[in-house]
Amino acid sequence: MEDIASIKFKKIGVIKTPYIDDAPYQPVDEDKGEFYIVIDDEYVEGLAKLGKFRYIYVIYYLDRAREETHMIINPAWIDNEKVGLFASRSPERPNPIGLSVVRIKKITGNKIFTSGLDIFDDTPLLDIKPYVKDLDSKKDSNYGWIENLKGNMEHLLLHIKGIPH
Amino acid sequence: MEDIASIKFKKIGVIKTPYIDDAPYQPVDEDKGEFYIVIDDEYVEGLAKLGKFRYIYVIYYLDRAREETHMIINPAWIDNEKVGLFASRSPERPNPIGLSVVRIKKITGNKIFTSGLDIFDDTPLLDIKPYVKDLDSKKDSNYGWIENLKGNMEHLLLHIKGIPH
Repeated sequence: MEDIASIKFKKIGVIKTPYIDDAPYQPVDEDKGEFYIVIDDEYVEGLAKLGKFRYIYVIYYLDRAREETHMIINPAWIDNEKVGLFASRSPERPNPIGLSVVRIKKITGNKIFTSGLDIFDDTPLLDIKPYVKDLDSKKDSNYGWIENLKGNMEHLLLHIKGIPH
Repeated sequence: MEDIASIKFKKIGVIKTPYIDDAPYQPVDEDKGEFYIVIDDEYVEGLAKLGKFRYIYVIYYLDRAREETHMIINPAWIDNEKVGLFASRSPERPNPIGLSVVRIKKITGNKIFTSGLDIFDDTPLLDIKPYVKDLDSKKDSNYGWIENLKGNMEHLLLHIKGIPH
């Protein structure tokens, strides 16, 4: 078997957001500024028919995440709750890969305008995949440990969705 | 800005499936064999409370994908249809990162038993994230260009879902 101790990926574009200095945990307010992906020229042809999908997965490199990771973490938006790193969306992971589901607003040339993304401006893009209804939308999905929190579920959901409140 | 021409990730575990030699495009039959993730010892603690979620995202390295990529591709399950690479789930991508939504069956120690995964045995694991109902399940998602195909939609969906038929 080949040596896969180190796996190499490359930046194929960049994600533009209004969040220059204080992105993560910042509420996503789509009225303030634009969110778009700029894909490198050599990959633009690969966007053909992407616009037929209402939603896409955006996969990116969390280049500003600290390298130090902890296997048990305290989510930023809830006090005194400790969960396993893989049961969280914390950016400080063994492999700092970010994943978001966004709505496509329009595609023009090398730019994909999307719904809000709670990430820093100029985040390196790794991949885009179509979000396919039956494959990816799970009606019977749940909220995991979040459902067991004592707080008001509706309030917690605003945090989860990144809605200002 | 740091040089991110090459981004390095590492294997944090391995995905076990019954597909030794002929995985992709193979229908997923959950009755035949087990599907489970084995996470490396140093990350096991990070699985705490993951079992509270019904679904998870599994992110992996498509280590058997050919390095040659084409920006316009012909999906394996439909003749004479050409789409952009990013509008497809083809494994031959600039960054061969795989993404699947799977159901957790049980977690015992360093093993996560899941619903079917249409990938080769021993695929390197990169990350696991919780699939959170409101964030990730989009009721108004669609089938993109697949909806425009002339074939029978129900039949095409069997292909998309990887159901033997």
